[in-house]
Amino acid sequence: MRKPGMPLILLLVGVSCILASDSVQTNSSEKEDKFPLTLSRGWGDDLYWIQTYEEALYRSKTTNKPLMIIHHLEDCPHSQALKKVFSENNEIQKLAEQFVMINFIYETPDKHLYPDGQYVPRILFVDPSLTVRADITGRYSNRLYAYEPSDINLLISNMKKALKMLKPEL
Amino acid sequence: MRKPGMPLILLLVGVSCILASDSVQTNSSEKEDKFPLTLSRGWGDDLYWIQTYEEALYRSKTTNKPLMIIHHLEDCPHSQALKKVFSENNEIQKLAEQFVMINFIYETPDKHLYPDGQYVPRILFVDPSLTVRADITGRYSNRLYAYEPSDINLLISNMKKALKMLKPEL
Repeated sequence: MRKPGMPLILLLVGVSCILASDSVQTNSSEKEDKFPLTLSRGWGDDLYWIQTYEEALYRSKTTNKPLMIIHHLEDCPHSQALKKVFSENNEIQKLAEQFVMINFIYETPDKHLYPDGQYVPRILFVDPSLTVRADITGRYSNRLYAYEPSDINLLISNMKKALKMLKPEL
Repeated sequence: MRKPGMPLILLLVGVSCILASDSVQTNSSEKEDKFPLTLSRGWGDDLYWIQTYEEALYRSKTTNKPLMIIHHLEDCPHSQALKKVFSENNEIQKLAEQFVMINFIYETPDKHLYPDGQYVPRILFVDPSLTVRADITGRYSNRLYAYEPSDINLLISNMKKALKMLKPEL
């Protein structure tokens, strides 16, 4: 018997890949396709991508630009689909220039970067005050920071929201 | 008066750049030259380069390959000169395939990675047991982990030394 009021978290969304999944085999020609490895990893070759989390935090703080962190996996079809839309959308690419950009295919030890789990694709914003903008979410209640390709306009609006910095409380 | 036996550390070597130096101006065409940014940053485009320190440590431990960490700066002429020799030397590039490779233009918070200071270029090896091989040094007493282009054979011999793993003490 189910207790009254007990929430049913059964909504299954398409945006879920297990981190470090190796379910999709790489083919033999992939080495040639992938090299040299880029810091953009296909999310926008004309953007300036930061390598390390520490540098990203430092740059956000010192340049007063918000930080946009994309967690993804190269063999995750949901990540791939979002990446295609993201990299081909001019408004997104233009907006991204106003951010310190970093993308990870590997989790960092900072638990603030997985407030509701280590799934991909997952997009988080960090204010230059180094506060994670946990309030800027997508539309899936069980994976708050996930986006599908069809959510691109919500992502654009969330990027604009992130550009409005947090004000310190008086 | 100098105390007897007090070591004179006055040897000045050419391999020293201050981290985050901006003494060399970038020219206007550099944006076009640099993009897309690569993880190799010119140290070997055919090698598999890791992005984050955490992933590098994980991969070293799980694959039982030693980790080779190169700290450098893109506007440091000593780093550039070493990179040219490193990337064009077939023996180095072949040896590098037996390592987990990472290069940083930004310091990590792990103080084990700067046993004698934060200079560049600086090359450190980490054993798959996650022990920094502080014993594998170059030939400059004041910057133990620095190499000049003319030290390439010493670097090759040090890579071979790093491939001989540490054995746990019985």
